[in-house]
Amino acid sequence: MTRYMATIAYDGTNFAGFQTQNNQRTVQEEIEKVLTKLNSHQPVILHGSGRTDSGVHAHAQRIHFDLQGQRDEERLRFALDTQTPSDIAFHEVTQVEEDFHVRFNKHEKIYEYFLENSKVRSPFHRLYRAHFRYKLDEDLMRQALADLIGTHDFTGFTAAGATVEDKVRTITQAEIVKLDNENYKFIFRGNGFLYKQVRNMMGTVIKIGNGRMPVSQIKKILESKNRDLAGPTAAPEGLYLKEVIYLD
Amino acid sequence: MTRYMATIAYDGTNFAGFQTQNNQRTVQEEIEKVLTKLNSHQPVILHGSGRTDSGVHAHAQRIHFDLQGQRDEERLRFALDTQTPSDIAFHEVTQVEEDFHVRFNKHEKIYEYFLENSKVRSPFHRLYRAHFRYKLDEDLMRQALADLIGTHDFTGFTAAGATVEDKVRTITQAEIVKLDNENYKFIFRGNGFLYKQVRNMMGTVIKIGNGRMPVSQIKKILESKNRDLAGPTAAPEGLYLKEVIYLD
Repeated sequence: MTRYMATIAYDGTNFAGFQTQNNQRTVQEEIEKVLTKLNSHQPVILHGSGRTDSGVHAHAQRIHFDLQGQRDEERLRFALDTQTPSDIAFHEVTQVEEDFHVRFNKHEKIYEYFLENSKVRSPFHRLYRAHFRYKLDEDLMRQALADLIGTHDFTGFTAAGATVEDKVRTITQAEIVKLDNENYKFIFRGNGFLYKQVRNMMGTVIKIGNGRMPVSQIKKILESKNRDLAGPTAAPEGLYLKEVIYLD
Repeated sequence: MTRYMATIAYDGTNFAGFQTQNNQRTVQEEIEKVLTKLNSHQPVILHGSGRTDSGVHAHAQRIHFDLQGQRDEERLRFALDTQTPSDIAFHEVTQVEEDFHVRFNKHEKIYEYFLENSKVRSPFHRLYRAHFRYKLDEDLMRQALADLIGTHDFTGFTAAGATVEDKVRTITQAEIVKLDNENYKFIFRGNGFLYKQVRNMMGTVIKIGNGRMPVSQIKKILESKNRDLAGPTAAPEGLYLKEVIYLD
């Protein structure tokens, strides 16, 4: 068996998320179907660097899988790119050591969150950016983001049913970029993110930007670990897994 | 009756074009349903500045329609924006003279055509930009575009079944903007465009950029009025009605 890592992009709109679920269309399942075909119909299981939820997009998700024999990387990439549906793209396939693991090898992740802040929602953004029609104060949001940077227990920003025990994570970048009069991009970089963490942070940052929560709320949520103090989970269509960076 | 003009955007992906057709979902039909409801269920017919085909998008299509009584423009806009499906947006509604006609009043149109020229097609562009994976020479395309500018009989660039008699049109702008290493935007401005004209011009420009037709082909098509000399009709998803500008 030979192990390959691939860098893939997908439009999350028509997927029930990355990970296989009963009777639902997922990224994992669509790719495994093609991999199994390329593997003389011996089942192939693929691993992702993490899940993404229904409606969440990826510019460069990383996956790995094992195939019988050895393949030319570019031919394998081309076969996967053309045989998977058009809402999945294979940008790169590389052979890796057989103990490499996209999830367990040490890495950092970058997520981006796009938000359209306008009276009228653009039909071209309805599946690709979140929308908020009321006033947002960029300065307040910037202050809130600054308080997220650092090593914290993010229990207050994860979903109630999360199963991971250790909820301490480090965020090294949390910033806002104004794209134009009506559009913002938020960038989050860290050594790992809990289930729904980015969307829960965004829901809180939006409330703060709209003046319905004080900037100090961020510190309060981190200290109390109380999910009830945070804002709602922001819409999935604004979220993109932008990059997975393997360290050493 | 009071006449209103509206500026609308739509994502053409899930429409069988702008104009009503039997048993198909069209922009016209979706809006007329809401207009009729707002008009005490008296049927309302809407007029567009022109049709767009299945898959073709609009940033600022113009429409007009007549309603009983007089309405507040912003309240009417809001009602139409929120009651039509999310792939249609109402940016503006204005009361106009009762003899104003979006199609017959003198106007110019701007179309934009987006083309991704890359090895791997982005899943985020698959419905919003055309894709061409082979080499394109920007300089050759620029020369070809220059030959389209001016007043010409565009018979050679329209669809075979077109019914308009006079096929002379004036193009005042035909240019190319390189957005980044893999993406181009083409801009066409003129006093009117024939059925499929922009996509047929684009199909020819792409062939010229790829070196499979000489730059001189443009003049040959204009002079001969022979559709068979032109390239194929380029994909609809790259095309956007960008602006309709009323003169005087």
